[in-house]
Amino acid sequence: MKKARLILVGFGKIGRGVAESIVKKRSHLMSLGYDLKVVAVCEVKGCVVDEKGIDLKRMLSGETRWGSRKTVDVISGMEADIVVEMTPGNIRDGEPGLSHIKAALKAGKHVVTSNKSPLAVAYHELQRQACKNGLELKFEATVGGAIPVINTCRSELRANGIMNIYGILNGTTNYILSKMSEEGVEFKVALKEAQSLGLAEPDPSYDIKGIDSAVKLVILADAIMGEDIRLKDLNVVGVDSITSDAVELAKDHGFVIKLVGDVAAREVSPRLIPVEHPLNVPGNRNAILVETDLANDITLIGAGAGPKETSSAVLGDILDVADRL
Amino acid sequence: MKKARLILVGFGKIGRGVAESIVKKRSHLMSLGYDLKVVAVCEVKGCVVDEKGIDLKRMLSGETRWGSRKTVDVISGMEADIVVEMTPGNIRDGEPGLSHIKAALKAGKHVVTSNKSPLAVAYHELQRQACKNGLELKFEATVGGAIPVINTCRSELRANGIMNIYGILNGTTNYILSKMSEEGVEFKVALKEAQSLGLAEPDPSYDIKGIDSAVKLVILADAIMGEDIRLKDLNVVGVDSITSDAVELAKDHGFVIKLVGDVAAREVSPRLIPVEHPLNVPGNRNAILVETDLANDITLIGAGAGPKETSSAVLGDILDVADRL
Repeated sequence: MKKARLILVGFGKIGRGVAESIVKKRSHLMSLGYDLKVVAVCEVKGCVVDEKGIDLKRMLSGETRWGSRKTVDVISGMEADIVVEMTPGNIRDGEPGLSHIKAALKAGKHVVTSNKSPLAVAYHELQRQACKNGLELKFEATVGGAIPVINTCRSELRANGIMNIYGILNGTTNYILSKMSEEGVEFKVALKEAQSLGLAEPDPSYDIKGIDSAVKLVILADAIMGEDIRLKDLNVVGVDSITSDAVELAKDHGFVIKLVGDVAAREVSPRLIPVEHPLNVPGNRNAILVETDLANDITLIGAGAGPKETSSAVLGDILDVADRL
Repeated sequence: MKKARLILVGFGKIGRGVAESIVKKRSHLMSLGYDLKVVAVCEVKGCVVDEKGIDLKRMLSGETRWGSRKTVDVISGMEADIVVEMTPGNIRDGEPGLSHIKAALKAGKHVVTSNKSPLAVAYHELQRQACKNGLELKFEATVGGAIPVINTCRSELRANGIMNIYGILNGTTNYILSKMSEEGVEFKVALKEAQSLGLAEPDPSYDIKGIDSAVKLVILADAIMGEDIRLKDLNVVGVDSITSDAVELAKDHGFVIKLVGDVAAREVSPRLIPVEHPLNVPGNRNAILVETDLANDITLIGAGAGPKETSSAVLGDILDVADRL
């Protein structure tokens, strides 16, 4: 049995989703030979710590009282194998996730994260620190939610040279554009519906201005294509000025308009995509196309967000690290 | 440096494609830490053997003389780590590949194969034999060509329960159906074009009757979904009776007709697929949808055949085994 002691950092939607999956999937994971024990859960409001293993069911029902220890102290001081960083990140400085990840790597703990910001800000620095200390830094959940694009490129496709990666990296804008195309409604109407369904934030600018896609594109560029770029190196155009007339005109010519991030072009922008193209995916799905020299084009499509969906990627990374313990 | 000595069995389109990729990718693979040495190449006409490493470039140019040693003798007697089985298989008895794989596992050699038939005939028997001897049996190239569906299910998605797998598993029929839909031509016209492009065999029945898809479906069922079925357990309907009228009628209602293999339904049959569905892929692409309990639906799209494309999957498997040597 491969045992791994986890510190969960961040207990919002993603953190709770991962905790729920650890509970629900316990017997499945045991049957695969994995015994995961959560020894600490940290949040802005405090930390819950139990080296014998936290009762996650009870925590999820809200019955647990938060202790006053600081997150970085728990990360540094607690005996554990993997720090699972799932806080919401600030895209300017990567905090607080960046400090959490650095503290974990300094303390000799492997890191699995769903937090885009620290990687978009300091991917190579963090990867160097992990390498130096013989530790794993895994981040499948940061791009494409449930879609295993990062590990597929790094593992299954590693005999290939990868020439480019491009695709639909944001589910909210894809929902809005799909809605506009399918129902002929204006941008504002589609946005309002996305908000009422919880697919868009009350302040949707992070998604609709293309920033979320751009942050993910930086990670793909740096982690998969060996580049060293930042958000400022990308040309980013959002979807908020797209009219229903433009969508209709595209449709008349056999196209849809999609917000596409493209590593080689260093660009996030609305593009015309032929209706029959693999990137034409409906609803809030993400779709990512990897251009390779042997396998040709490989496209991966799936849920780009959602706590349960994202937990698939986080758990996959946790099991990968557990294999190496 | 991870060293692996390979015996290539089968030097037709796939075998030569893999040999070419090993030559072309030598420095890339070295940079990843892999040193692959081919110590034997076997074919119906004989074997070429050199424990110091065969000059593949010379072999590919046709300059090498085939020796008279038998394939099974080379597999059993030669010092090597991995037998790469790439002969064309007989779907009734899995031969000659089945004997090659059994001989390899008996001789303590790992197996990587692109040969569907031995697995469709005896997957669990071969897997048991591999397990018993502590050996790897890898077969990514058998389903979906370049698409890494098998290893993605077994690795990246392994925290998930997999409820079903269905999709387009045959590129030839997809080319024909796409052509019929795009250009309104009859089945026979589209088939003739596929044949002239080398996408369909002179006797196309293996593809168009749905047998090729069915063989792949058996592998997905047995290897990924834990079933134990054979070709005879599937209901198989091909595409040869589909008329251009039917294709046109489907199109008028926003559908395309695709040949879909479906594990849960134990069926290969033409199905109506909505135009905007991820399985609606053009040309000779394959598309495979994996229904999971956490990640939801994950669809993988790519080249389902081709020597270079398939070599991506074979090489990926070889590197995986090399990691374990």
